[in-house]
Amino acid sequence: MKLLFLGDIVGRAARDAIISDLPGLRADLDADFVVVNGENAAGGFGITAQICEELFDAGVDVVTLGNHAWDQREALVHIERESRLIRPVNFPKGTPGRGAHLFETAKGERVLVINAMGRVFMDALDDPFAAIERELDACPLGEVADAILVDFHGEATSEKMAMGHFCDGRASLVVGTHSHVPTADAQVLPGGTAYQTDAGMCGDYNSVIGMEKDEPLNRFLSKIPSGRFQPALGPATLCGVFVETDARGLASRIEPVRIGGRLKRALPDV
Amino acid sequence: MKLLFLGDIVGRAARDAIISDLPGLRADLDADFVVVNGENAAGGFGITAQICEELFDAGVDVVTLGNHAWDQREALVHIERESRLIRPVNFPKGTPGRGAHLFETAKGERVLVINAMGRVFMDALDDPFAAIERELDACPLGEVADAILVDFHGEATSEKMAMGHFCDGRASLVVGTHSHVPTADAQVLPGGTAYQTDAGMCGDYNSVIGMEKDEPLNRFLSKIPSGRFQPALGPATLCGVFVETDARGLASRIEPVRIGGRLKRALPDV
Amino acid sequence: MKLLFLGDIVGRAARDAIISDLPGLRADLDADFVVVNGENAAGGFGITAQICEELFDAGVDVVTLGNHAWDQREALVHIERESRLIRPVNFPKGTPGRGAHLFETAKGERVLVINAMGRVFMDALDDPFAAIERELDACPLGEVADAILVDFHGEATSEKMAMGHFCDGRASLVVGTHSHVPTADAQVLPGGTAYQTDAGMCGDYNSVIGMEKDEPLNRFLSKIPSGRFQPALGPATLCGVFVETDARGLASRIEPVRIGGRLKRALPDV
Amino acid sequence: MKLLFLGDIVGRAARDAIISDLPGLRADLDADFVVVNGENAAGGFGITAQICEELFDAGVDVVTLGNHAWDQREALVHIERESRLIRPVNFPKGTPGRGAHLFETAKGERVLVINAMGRVFMDALDDPFAAIERELDACPLGEVADAILVDFHGEATSEKMAMGHFCDGRASLVVGTHSHVPTADAQVLPGGTAYQTDAGMCGDYNSVIGMEKDEPLNRFLSKIPSGRFQPALGPATLCGVFVETDARGLASRIEPVRIGGRLKRALPDV
Ligand SMILES: [Fe+2]
Ligand SMILES: [Fe+2]
Ligand SMILES: [Fe+2]
Ligand SMILES: [Fe+2]
Ligand SMILES: [Fe+2]
Ligand SMILES: [Fe+2]
Ligand SMILES: [Fe+2]
Ligand SMILES: [Fe+2]
Repeated sequence: MKLLFLGDIVGRAARDAIISDLPGLRADLDADFVVVNGENAAGGFGITAQICEELFDAGVDVVTLGNHAWDQREALVHIERESRLIRPVNFPKGTPGRGAHLFETAKGERVLVINAMGRVFMDALDDPFAAIERELDACPLGEVADAILVDFHGEATSEKMAMGHFCDGRASLVVGTHSHVPTADAQVLPGGTAYQTDAGMCGDYNSVIGMEKDEPLNRFLSKIPSGRFQPALGPATLCGVFVETDARGLASRIEPVRIGGRLKRALPDV
Repeated sequence: MKLLFLGDIVGRAARDAIISDLPGLRADLDADFVVVNGENAAGGFGITAQICEELFDAGVDVVTLGNHAWDQREALVHIERESRLIRPVNFPKGTPGRGAHLFETAKGERVLVINAMGRVFMDALDDPFAAIERELDACPLGEVADAILVDFHGEATSEKMAMGHFCDGRASLVVGTHSHVPTADAQVLPGGTAYQTDAGMCGDYNSVIGMEKDEPLNRFLSKIPSGRFQPALGPATLCGVFVETDARGLASRIEPVRIGGRLKRALPDV
Repeated sequence: MKLLFLGDIVGRAARDAIISDLPGLRADLDADFVVVNGENAAGGFGITAQICEELFDAGVDVVTLGNHAWDQREALVHIERESRLIRPVNFPKGTPGRGAHLFETAKGERVLVINAMGRVFMDALDDPFAAIERELDACPLGEVADAILVDFHGEATSEKMAMGHFCDGRASLVVGTHSHVPTADAQVLPGGTAYQTDAGMCGDYNSVIGMEKDEPLNRFLSKIPSGRFQPALGPATLCGVFVETDARGLASRIEPVRIGGRLKRALPDV
Repeated sequence: MKLLFLGDIVGRAARDAIISDLPGLRADLDADFVVVNGENAAGGFGITAQICEELFDAGVDVVTLGNHAWDQREALVHIERESRLIRPVNFPKGTPGRGAHLFETAKGERVLVINAMGRVFMDALDDPFAAIERELDACPLGEVADAILVDFHGEATSEKMAMGHFCDGRASLVVGTHSHVPTADAQVLPGGTAYQTDAGMCGDYNSVIGMEKDEPLNRFLSKIPSGRFQPALGPATLCGVFVETDARGLASRIEPVRIGGRLKRALPDV
């Protein structure tokens, strides 16, 4: 199976790039399943029902979230009726929506998507390792699921690398999100799980993590807010990873994807 | 000028790789000046006088540090007599050693090296933006310095990107360290400063940030330490960036460097 | 019922004060049940089997713990056979020992003791609110338990006050530990639960949270460790709270207790 | 000299209590100088010019601030023309207003007031120890100042106790703010400086640190904001400390002050 994952979509510039470029990219890569992280899609803060639709129309199969999941309050309602929108699995019991779901591709293959949030330097949530363990046990790779994709939304590289090894041999892909910068450490771990510490954002890299740079810089320097954070509107780079899986659901290959904008282009040969 | 920077050297495997590969790499790249971050060189924790010597012998010009600077206490003494060893400039007043120094290359060009530490999700130190501003003012690019290299040792991508823009046009290179994972966002910023959020470590990437993975995983899962952290001893990848500067000291080019070990090779054409 | 709770016992000076003063204090207050937090009893770091015995011999019924629970590794074994030693209930599944237990007083009354850890500015653990809810549901006040004592080991006053209100009407006492400073906000909350944000440590208050002050001060000033933390050995103040409960198990009264050392004496009239 | 300090004033209930009770309290205590922390005076967030006036009219001599200093943006302007409004001294260079100032009492005695912010579990600022050292050196107790009052706005009890010892013998009073809970550790330190870890807030203690408790509890439980934080409007307790100094400016006495509301009354005999 061929999987494409793209990291945190930041604001309009990134949504526009998804809408214009994803259909072609999906076709070029012959991707069977496309997952994007949408936690910053609405002006940098959360996601709306309408933006979900735009993403699905552009060829996205599943949207994952993160710490910004509920910045737009309508997402709390929308997620209850939209099974293709997934939020971190280790949010408190009773949180609307789901943290993992088994999807079927057009070809009839089953893909389990899990979204979880790290805890190091992030908000206090329940143990993501235990939560992911439960999901993997409930839906084992090669038995119930043909592929398993884990979007681990975290800050610390240590926690993300640990999660990669924790899932190694049990998931097709563990990819980090949240740092908004792609890492250059794509590899198939010893047990067969594809891994990259962070997918990177889809957004303008002439910015501070996707936001127009003046206000972040002002706050670092003066510690006095003087305005809102606004997504930078320069050309966006779509960032993510492309993975091919074998008959067991393990990864035979992982390649970085970087299209457009300021970053060096990376497009897997297929 | 041609500058080579390599990120945090983690333990023996990485030191061995430096010793065996750096001389050739330096020659291949025709590098004028080589800086490495050595805060984890001694078994993952700090650096010793002897390790400094080994690094200098292998072709390193300057060693920078970070939050692990003093894990080996002899570094507190050694740094006072070894001007090629630089510690974060925003450590408290009275800290041994220097946070910035102007060096001269074999060809007689002057390179200012600044090391500073971020404060987001890190220990409380004085303002790195103000500290770097002072150093840049005291030794302006194109006037006193022919090139300026800033090793910004930080956790948060936001703070690191903000520092890149803060120095843009005033430094040749701002490169992050500390996350131990190379980022894939190398770019020349609009003002002419080369930037990459993190150089990545020199170390074994089948690990948790360079450490043998069992104990980190155990701690994430059980919250009960059951042993020490030990550097992973598999083949190390040397990670960093290569920068070419123009007559003004600004960057005409930045390229990632990844040699050996598990990560995808990246070697600039020269 | 009359309950006495004393906060974090720091080192030898505090243990000696417990041994010499607790028997008389218990008698004077006619206390039915005595709980102490012992996470710093062994030289400031953890607890041993022998120290547990000393505390029980001095009239302690139950010892609770906190983030320093396992600083002495023998506690991991000892807690499995000593039911009077309780560790935070929201430690990961599989952690040795218990986080809550129902005890019987000499008069045959049943006291549920729960120990939990906060998450704000502390290590990442599972939700203490959900964990305590489960314990309260399993052993309701006035039905299964005649009194319920919650030692909430936390840093942030906001989280501790929130826990007080969360348990209000369902526990006899919610008392904080970990800050090592007694608060002066003892009150019976509107629903009948006695509350104090922090019990304060049992230790020498001419110190930095019970530790000899030179090394903590040195680290704040220089950021360079130059030695170990050692408990201060001046006269200890025993700090805690005294609570009387009514027939429903709710609090009719809470009074601060401060005996010995440098702090102003507080001893309830009985 | 007789000094009265009251902690963080939270919202209208606390302001009303100040206005109605402070004139009598000041007279009863025969206080020469009254300082209050006003960082939460305006609906829990910051302070306005008009609220400053109300406080001065009620008998306050100086208002200090903290991390909420600029929540009301008019304070950035007002502090430039109102010398009785003091903000943390370790804010970045260029911050409006002053972090320390020498005042004169009605009797002609000179009181230096310093406000500083801690860094442990708080925003990244410059070193408060170094900053306070500079102020103490510039205006030594017993020479330039007849009394020196330090409001150390911090979270961690360790940092606050360390600051007390750091200033011991050089200030009349070091008192903490920010935790919004009074501590019961008032003492004159060995060198003669009066110390209490936290003054406590002036506000309604049937709350979560002064805020109506439903929304804080909701956020701890669900991690989903569902409204704004609002100050609790029940009867406020005025909390603080009363200090008498000797001819050298050192403390001969420190007593807690707690008036009104739910907490146990404490009023020094004079
Ligand atoms: Fe994001
Ligand atoms: Fe995020
Ligand atoms: Fe490092
Ligand atoms: Fe580091
Ligand atoms: Fe403790
Ligand atoms: Fe603790
Ligand atoms: Fe406050
Ligand atoms: Fe505050």
